[in-house]
Order: sequence, then structure tokens, then C-alpha cells
Amino acid sequence: MTDILPAALRDAIDELGRLPGVGARTAERYAYFLLRASTDKNTSLARAIQSLKTRVKVCPITFALIDIDEDVSPLYSNANRDKGLVAVVEEPLDVVALERTGQFKGTYHVLGGAISPIDGIGPDELHVPELVERIKTDEVRELIIATNASVEGESTALFLQRYLQDKKIEVQMSRLARGIPVGVDLEYADQITLSHALQGRRSI
Amino acid sequence: MTDILPAALRDAIDELGRLPGVGARTAERYAYFLLRASTDKNTSLARAIQSLKTRVKVCPITFALIDIDEDVSPLYSNANRDKGLVAVVEEPLDVVALERTGQFKGTYHVLGGAISPIDGIGPDELHVPELVERIKTDEVRELIIATNASVEGESTALFLQRYLQDKKIEVQMSRLARGIPVGVDLEYADQITLSHALQGRRSI
Repeated sequence: MTDILPAALRDAIDELGRLPGVGARTAERYAYFLLRASTDKNTSLARAIQSLKTRVKVCPITFALIDIDEDVSPLYSNANRDKGLVAVVEEPLDVVALERTGQFKGTYHVLGGAISPIDGIGPDELHVPELVERIKTDEVRELIIATNASVEGESTALFLQRYLQDKKIEVQMSRLARGIPVGVDLEYADQITLSHALQGRRSI
Repeated sequence: MTDILPAALRDAIDELGRLPGVGARTAERYAYFLLRASTDKNTSLARAIQSLKTRVKVCPITFALIDIDEDVSPLYSNANRDKGLVAVVEEPLDVVALERTGQFKGTYHVLGGAISPIDGIGPDELHVPELVERIKTDEVRELIIATNASVEGESTALFLQRYLQDKKIEVQMSRLARGIPVGVDLEYADQITLSHALQGRRSI
């Protein structure tokens, strides 16, 4: 098997196979596509990959991803954003998801993950102390705990609630609503989602 | 939307989104994965992508992909391979698929595509003249036309047959057998495949 393909092609297949969810066949397809692409395009892809680590950094206040030239996240420094309202999310891409709604005018705080004892991620691995600091400095009124609807996301939300209570920090806390997603038939909704939808029903 | 993510991350998402079958969400996932990977790993991926064009070339006889340092494909120069038996395939990766069977001891000829009038690929765009030359030089006894089981693959096989007849080139030609793939129930086989399986039935 080893000497059918040129070494450089095998290397590229191995390297592309490290991407999440990419198996051997997909990696072959990518490598073969790149082999036929122009040198310029491949160079720009290679540069973009290398620039990721050198041109992107983490905002020291919100922990969102920012440009290397920026001091803080533009979503935080923007005077039109309400610093008293903070959405707490797990990962930087969650910020993008919430921004896409165009509905949120507050600021963000990226925890950098969720509490997961199995993966050895406790409160100390997350940006929780910095959140506490920020609540005081920015006089935060409300925290929207926008962690994922997973076991880890729920644990993290519960932990934050207790942690802030223990520290006697007065801040209103909310969770994103649970319910039936748009476009889903009632009969296909799972029991837990449907229970949430019942509990969270709104008068009309 | 444009200024939520750092420019370098947006670039990486755009560039990764050029890969075949990769949409915006998958590209985001890849970029975010690479952002968290080590600088070393990203450098080796970037290098592997750039080496593809500089370290891989095409064999001047078989048109298989070979190392930049090699003169001809090792599958051709190998004295144990039968030069009188040539499998004609569309793409370089088809060579890998046939080699994986471990059953083929002949040599290969990569056409570089299939005849497809829609895409403007006629016989002149494929390595057909070189195949004719090779049949004479290597005294080829048999050509196995191992093009894909698609309309283009079939047209290419038919074209080759007529082309060689017109040129009065005496060579035995064969096609890969069509039939029911291993592990597939008869009831799920499509009509055309089943017709081929009937026509190509073997006495036992």
C-alpha cells in the first residue's frame, strides 16, 4: 500500500485526515482536489491556516476571538452595546450564532468550554473568575446563561448560579428558552423538549 | 456579520470552504479546530498542502502520480509487473483502488478524465495518443478498460474501442465485470445492475 502514492500526497492525506470528522476517503478527495488546484490557491489556503495562530488572539475581557491588532473585542468596545447585559457562552463560535439573530444588543463572555468532570474541566479551567470581576466592574444587571442544551451546558449553568449566590453577587440570571424549534412537528419533538415547551408556555 | 470574527479566522473559513463538499458550517468547524491545534501541527498541514504542487508530478508513461524524484511510476518500472497487461483508468486515485485489491499484476494508464462533451473534454484532452504509443512500444496484449460505471466512463470505453479499431491496433480489450456488489441484497439492486448481473452470469 505504502508506495502507490507519492510521499507528498500521502502526507497531505494524513494531515487533512486530522480535521474533525474527516476520514481517509474524504482526506483523499481533499488532497486530490488541492493537487489539481492552482499553486496560488493552495498557497493562500496554507497561509490562512498558518495565520490562524499568529493573527488571532483572545479578547482579555470577553474571551471572544479577536484580531491580533485589536485590544478588546469590537462587540465589547462598541458604545452601542449594553455592557450591563452579558450573554455567557461556551465557545467563541457561539457568539457568531447569537450575533446572527441580530436581536442581541448586550455583550458576551466566553467561558472557554463547559464544566465536564470526565474531561477534567472544572470551574478553574473556565473564565469564571474573570466573569465575577466583570460583573463588579461593569455593573452587570443581567447574565443570560447561553450554554448548550447538553448535560455539560446544564451543569455549567447550575454551577454558575450557585457560585454567584455563594459569592453574594447580586445579578439577575436567565437561561435561553427551551421549546420546539421552528419548523418541527409536535409528533417528532422529543419528550424532554416537549416538557420544556409545556413548562415554558407563554400566554397569548 | 463581517466583523464578528477576526479577519484571519474569516480567511481560513473562506479558504477551507473551497474544499469539495465543504459548506460554511464545516469550514467553521475545521477553522476552529485548527485554531485550537498546536502551531506545529498547523505548520505541517500548511507545508503538506504546499508540497503537493512542488513534490508531486505525473509519470510521463503511465500518467500516475509520482514523487518529484522518480522518473517513472514504480508500478511501471517494477520488473514483476506485466507490461503486456494495462488497466486504463480515469483518475490517479483509481490506481490506488485497484492496487488495494492486491489482485492486479499488470501496469496502469491514467487517462486524466473521461470523455464528457458537456465539460468540453474530448479525446484530445485525455492521454489517448500516449496509450496508442505504449501499446506498440510495450507490445501490450490486453487492455482492461477500468473507467467508471458512469455515462462518461461508458462513452470513454466505447470511444477507446472504436478508436483502436480504426487505427487497426490489435489488442485484446476487456471491461470490469458489472454485477451485484458484495453484501447487497438482490431486492435492493437497481434494474440496470441486475440486467448486467444476468448477462454476465458465470457457470458454476
